[in-house]
Amino acid sequence: KWGDYLKEENSIIPNDEDILWINVTGLYETNKIKKLCEKFEIDQLTIEDIYHTNQRNKIEIHDNYSFIVLKLINKKEEIYTYEQFSVIYKDNLIITFNETENKNHETIKNQIEENKKKIKEKKSDYLMYAILDKIIDDYFIINNELTEKLEKIDESVNMDPDQQDLIKIKSTKQEVIYFKKNIMTLKETLMFNKDDFFKRLNKENKEYYRDLFDHVYQLYESADILNETLTNLTEIYFSAISYKMNEIMKVLTIISTIFIPLSFLAGLYGMNFKNMPELDWNFGYPLLIIIMLLIVLIMLLIFKKKKWF
Amino acid sequence: KWGDYLKEENSIIPNDEDILWINVTGLYETNKIKKLCEKFEIDQLTIEDIYHTNQRNKIEIHDNYSFIVLKLINKKEEIYTYEQFSVIYKDNLIITFNETENKNHETIKNQIEENKKKIKEKKSDYLMYAILDKIIDDYFIINNELTEKLEKIDESVNMDPDQQDLIKIKSTKQEVIYFKKNIMTLKETLMFNKDDFFKRLNKENKEYYRDLFDHVYQLYESADILNETLTNLTEIYFSAISYKMNEIMKVLTIISTIFIPLSFLAGLYGMNFKNMPELDWNFGYPLLIIIMLLIVLIMLLIFKKKKWF
Amino acid sequence: KWGDYLKEENSIIPNDEDILWINVTGLYETNKIKKLCEKFEIDQLTIEDIYHTNQRNKIEIHDNYSFIVLKLINKKEEIYTYEQFSVIYKDNLIITFNETENKNHETIKNQIEENKKKIKEKKSDYLMYAILDKIIDDYFIINNELTEKLEKIDESVNMDPDQQDLIKIKSTKQEVIYFKKNIMTLKETLMFNKDDFFKRLNKENKEYYRDLFDHVYQLYESADILNETLTNLTEIYFSAISYKMNEIMKVLTIISTIFIPLSFLAGLYGMNFKNMPELDWNFGYPLLIIIMLLIVLIMLLIFKKKKWF
Amino acid sequence: KWGDYLKEENSIIPNDEDILWINVTGLYETNKIKKLCEKFEIDQLTIEDIYHTNQRNKIEIHDNYSFIVLKLINKKEEIYTYEQFSVIYKDNLIITFNETENKNHETIKNQIEENKKKIKEKKSDYLMYAILDKIIDDYFIINNELTEKLEKIDESVNMDPDQQDLIKIKSTKQEVIYFKKNIMTLKETLMFNKDDFFKRLNKENKEYYRDLFDHVYQLYESADILNETLTNLTEIYFSAISYKMNEIMKVLTIISTIFIPLSFLAGLYGMNFKNMPELDWNFGYPLLIIIMLLIVLIMLLIFKKKKWF
Amino acid sequence: KWGDYLKEENSIIPNDEDILWINVTGLYETNKIKKLCEKFEIDQLTIEDIYHTNQRNKIEIHDNYSFIVLKLINKKEEIYTYEQFSVIYKDNLIITFNETENKNHETIKNQIEENKKKIKEKKSDYLMYAILDKIIDDYFIINNELTEKLEKIDESVNMDPDQQDLIKIKSTKQEVIYFKKNIMTLKETLMFNKDDFFKRLNKENKEYYRDLFDHVYQLYESADILNETLTNLTEIYFSAISYKMNEIMKVLTIISTIFIPLSFLAGLYGMNFKNMPELDWNFGYPLLIIIMLLIVLIMLLIFKKKKWF
Repeated sequence: KWGDYLKEENSIIPNDEDILWINVTGLYETNKIKKLCEKFEIDQLTIEDIYHTNQRNKIEIHDNYSFIVLKLINKKEEIYTYEQFSVIYKDNLIITFNETENKNHETIKNQIEENKKKIKEKKSDYLMYAILDKIIDDYFIINNELTEKLEKIDESVNMDPDQQDLIKIKSTKQEVIYFKKNIMTLKETLMFNKDDFFKRLNKENKEYYRDLFDHVYQLYESADILNETLTNLTEIYFSAISYKMNEIMKVLTIISTIFIPLSFLAGLYGMNFKNMPELDWNFGYPLLIIIMLLIVLIMLLIFKKKKWF
Repeated sequence: KWGDYLKEENSIIPNDEDILWINVTGLYETNKIKKLCEKFEIDQLTIEDIYHTNQRNKIEIHDNYSFIVLKLINKKEEIYTYEQFSVIYKDNLIITFNETENKNHETIKNQIEENKKKIKEKKSDYLMYAILDKIIDDYFIINNELTEKLEKIDESVNMDPDQQDLIKIKSTKQEVIYFKKNIMTLKETLMFNKDDFFKRLNKENKEYYRDLFDHVYQLYESADILNETLTNLTEIYFSAISYKMNEIMKVLTIISTIFIPLSFLAGLYGMNFKNMPELDWNFGYPLLIIIMLLIVLIMLLIFKKKKWF
Repeated sequence: KWGDYLKEENSIIPNDEDILWINVTGLYETNKIKKLCEKFEIDQLTIEDIYHTNQRNKIEIHDNYSFIVLKLINKKEEIYTYEQFSVIYKDNLIITFNETENKNHETIKNQIEENKKKIKEKKSDYLMYAILDKIIDDYFIINNELTEKLEKIDESVNMDPDQQDLIKIKSTKQEVIYFKKNIMTLKETLMFNKDDFFKRLNKENKEYYRDLFDHVYQLYESADILNETLTNLTEIYFSAISYKMNEIMKVLTIISTIFIPLSFLAGLYGMNFKNMPELDWNFGYPLLIIIMLLIVLIMLLIFKKKKWF
Repeated sequence: KWGDYLKEENSIIPNDEDILWINVTGLYETNKIKKLCEKFEIDQLTIEDIYHTNQRNKIEIHDNYSFIVLKLINKKEEIYTYEQFSVIYKDNLIITFNETENKNHETIKNQIEENKKKIKEKKSDYLMYAILDKIIDDYFIINNELTEKLEKIDESVNMDPDQQDLIKIKSTKQEVIYFKKNIMTLKETLMFNKDDFFKRLNKENKEYYRDLFDHVYQLYESADILNETLTNLTEIYFSAISYKMNEIMKVLTIISTIFIPLSFLAGLYGMNFKNMPELDWNFGYPLLIIIMLLIVLIMLLIFKKKKWF
Repeated sequence: KWGDYLKEENSIIPNDEDILWINVTGLYETNKIKKLCEKFEIDQLTIEDIYHTNQRNKIEIHDNYSFIVLKLINKKEEIYTYEQFSVIYKDNLIITFNETENKNHETIKNQIEENKKKIKEKKSDYLMYAILDKIIDDYFIINNELTEKLEKIDESVNMDPDQQDLIKIKSTKQEVIYFKKNIMTLKETLMFNKDDFFKRLNKENKEYYRDLFDHVYQLYESADILNETLTNLTEIYFSAISYKMNEIMKVLTIISTIFIPLSFLAGLYGMNFKNMPELDWNFGYPLLIIIMLLIVLIMLLIFKKKKWF
């Protein structure tokens, strides 16, 4: 059984045999949330945590319920936004709170419909596992998207590094910082509260949560590799720009070094001194051309030796 | 009940039923502070810590009182200054010490006036919670201000990085270093003394402090993100300067590489050799112009191929 | 005894006296893997871990079996690919799962054939040790290959740093990131589960596993040295490029600084003013040549003093 | 009572009621140190530690005495030198060992003279506290000096970064490395031996030592801020140099880009071709001047648009 | 008593009263090593560790003996090579294994000859201490050599940074990486096995080992300072190269900025237009020279203001 409490206004009464899942979408109607929570004897501070949407990821073990706060990641026009998602788990009751409509729930509802009997057997903590697992799966998808983004930037930097790449690197880095931080706090809160949290679970479902925690650890390591790859990429961008500048300097230097002395020679014989015997020689001009060609040749040989091209 | 002890000179006698809050503003009159503290049997070293305003954040659990030292952050003309704030918590007595007038107290006083009954019920440790919570809230405000500062610098660097940005990055970094360090020591002292400190609290208020501690952890992570964002920004600044230099070099190299050879050719036919048959040709001049145009064309094609523009 | 279960389809029945090694190659036929595992009462989540090939390295201690997931490293055309390898260890039964054909097994089979008696004595955990030891040996080989790669790049950078080196540094760094991360998770899981895992082993074989764990620690330190060497190399590449640019700039500056003033002088006497007495002097031209030579000499002395060449 | 044992040769016999402070200056006369220490049953290895002056900071708790090794920081002509200082604390006996004359002792002696009675009451561990506190105070002074140094370099870098700044940054960094390392080992040894050390202290003096330890933690954090400030400063220096190079390149490029094309045009009409109709036009020269001015104008507009000045 | 077992082939029989020291030089004759070790009931894996010379530093506590693996550092033609050294300590028996002749042993033998009685009193673990202490002393010597190397490079970089310095920095960094890693693993294994190892020692010798461990910690900190100094040096090298490039650019820009406009003016009056009235003026030429001198003056003033020289 589930209900979109705030919208449908149907006051569902918990029932000892069934598993009750109440899903609240939209956290602006704080009064209704309060009323709902108070009905199930949820602590005042927990209620505040639910509608103050800047909580860190955490697991709180209260005397009569467990409280989990996570971040959902939504993607809107290539930008990731973080949205608070909280779960209250109390015996056979699960209450979930979303800021906006959560696509995952639809999938889970369908799964429940199909396997009603199996879910019932597995108790409410299996349902919570299913919800949390979907969220973690989303994280893996985003991790892969970020990895692909990096691969695209990498290719672009290798071919021709430009300012667009730099801006992309920067924005991706910012995304990775938030993503990694989010997973890190998640991992830490899991590690810290693991034992207390596991005590509340039904024995047959512990294995599922162990698997879930394992996925979070794996995520953390993937995010770490993402971060190191990005650092590697930034260094490569720097080096590539540096290398390109080097190439530009080489071209400038080769052209300047060849033509500046030649221009000087041409300028020399463009002077208007009365007494310049070379100017009157018949072979003065062809001789100078030959000398200039020799200079060019020697220069080119020197550059070749210096491996400038 | 509260009193600005040092100023109003009214010697308030603690009273078993009420909660007594004494607020001392200005730490220069050490004798009065001493007298006040000795009256409540505060340790000599604690008293010294109160008026030596370079203490680190700390929680000290003494036999008959708890002692907390924090930093308040004030903002004067865009500069953050740190000011020492200490609290002594002893049964139903709270003594707070500020270097200068503290705006937060006014707000708290008003809150107390409005909810006199509720505060009385909740005991003195709830009052202390209210005071500390205000301070932590201020930290969040500063964290947001610093984040906004970084966003402004970021925009400016993207458009056109200049030395002003560098100076702003530097000063913001220094601010972030102090801010983060301050929160770090706060977090560490909380973690270290948490258990001993909680034992002193009334059971019904423990939840508030847990929430407060949670906020400090969250602050620490925000400050960490701030720091990483700043590092990211510094790298971007470097790259942007580097990229701009690259662009300047390209312009120089394109202009030089095109005109230096042309100038050489012009110089060549400016020479005064007697025997230069080209000079006498009727189509010598137009031919040279055509050759020069061809050189320009070829150069431009090469630059195009090298993706220089 | 061993069998390639999925391929040969022979349903081997475990037998209390012998050690049974079932090796499954290819993880696509999930149904057969399921059937095999269920026969030996392997947990559902473990089975999923076996054919979902993106698990992190881990040791899981279940009530009636131990489960180890590792990565095998294969090398195809100079690229390292990671392949999941899992082992189930249950009394006298060892089941191994490979994504593709595993060369190591052949060697191990031969060793077993030769020392049948010795293996039998040493129980199944010795066989597992032999399998794992081969995998760790492969890691050492890859560590050495990566070290040699770095030495080659190092030589190339010292002689003449070019963009090829940069691309090689980048790709090697990416390989080292994955390699190190892999070993790190391996080391961590070993450290974490060491005690529980050792309890299951036969006393006479514990020493072998201690040796194996020691090798993993050693690997981790080697990978760390690899990483630091690479960082060192990247810095050297940057400096070498920087130094080379410096050299190029010096050449440009020397040529420009010498010839630009000379060209100016030549241009000066190429002017067509009516009243330029120097032009009419008999020794005007040779005098200018001498002055120019003096300028060159002085310039060269200045450069010498500045240690530009 | 105190005595400069090695110099004055007076063999002071400890006396149960008084506190005896023996101060040894100069560690070259190892025999006398040995004799003195053996008299008080000091361990052979401790004695060696006293006159081998390259010990790390440490606290050793022996059966019948405590042994502390610290570094004193002396400043000679702007250079900080580290000198070993060791204390043996045994019941009512304090022996201190200095490499050279220690200015702090004089101040402490005067304090003792003035408060003879108070010190006597407070036992020998208060005296040791007074000695150690003076040393830690010196550390704070050096910390402030280093901070001021950095502020001076910072100002200089902002105005005009030159090589002098770089050399100053380098030497200050080296000083900070040693300073921070020294405080770090001090902090670590305090943390590690805190509990054992406190057991030996008289209850009424524990608070003083807690305060002392607090100062060391505070020092460590100050040294850390110092280090981060220095890193910030180094980055700023790099950026400032980079920015300045950028400015230089801009000037070069603006001048070159404007005049190289103009020079080419001038060179073009300096050619001696017979058939150059433009040369014979009456308005050829003024027309060219106008064209040149137009080129300059367009160039300047382009640079303006590129925000080059 | 000691013997060079492998070479002299004398089969020494341990004797309960004396301390027996067997030193094996050269690890190629694995059979003899095996035979020797088996005689003293050394574990098979320990024996393999002895002649596989790529072990990490470790202390192993076995039931009837302790096993220590260290690296000796040899210096051959300015290159440090690491050589495996292992010790087996079993009651009154010490067996040491070296890859090559170990100079330290000679010194220790002489010390033993001189103080036979003292050694005998102090048991076999004092002898082992003497051997290990010599090795750690060698480490300090190498640490000092590396520090001196860095000081030499530092001086050279300050005077005139060139590519030789870069190559020296790189190779020294590689040496420091290995050196520090070696000491780090040594420190870690000591920390980890300290308690178990100390249990085996005779009470009167524990103090010596505590001193030895202290030296290793000190070494680790020295190696860390070495590393940070090197990082500092690398940064200085980069900055120095950067600064030098800046200086070169300045020279180029000053020369170009002064002469390019002058050359343009000269080129302008070198044009052959019929109608150029300036050319016919009597004071045209001196006027131009004056204008040119004014331009140079103004340029120099601008550069002065920009602090370019």
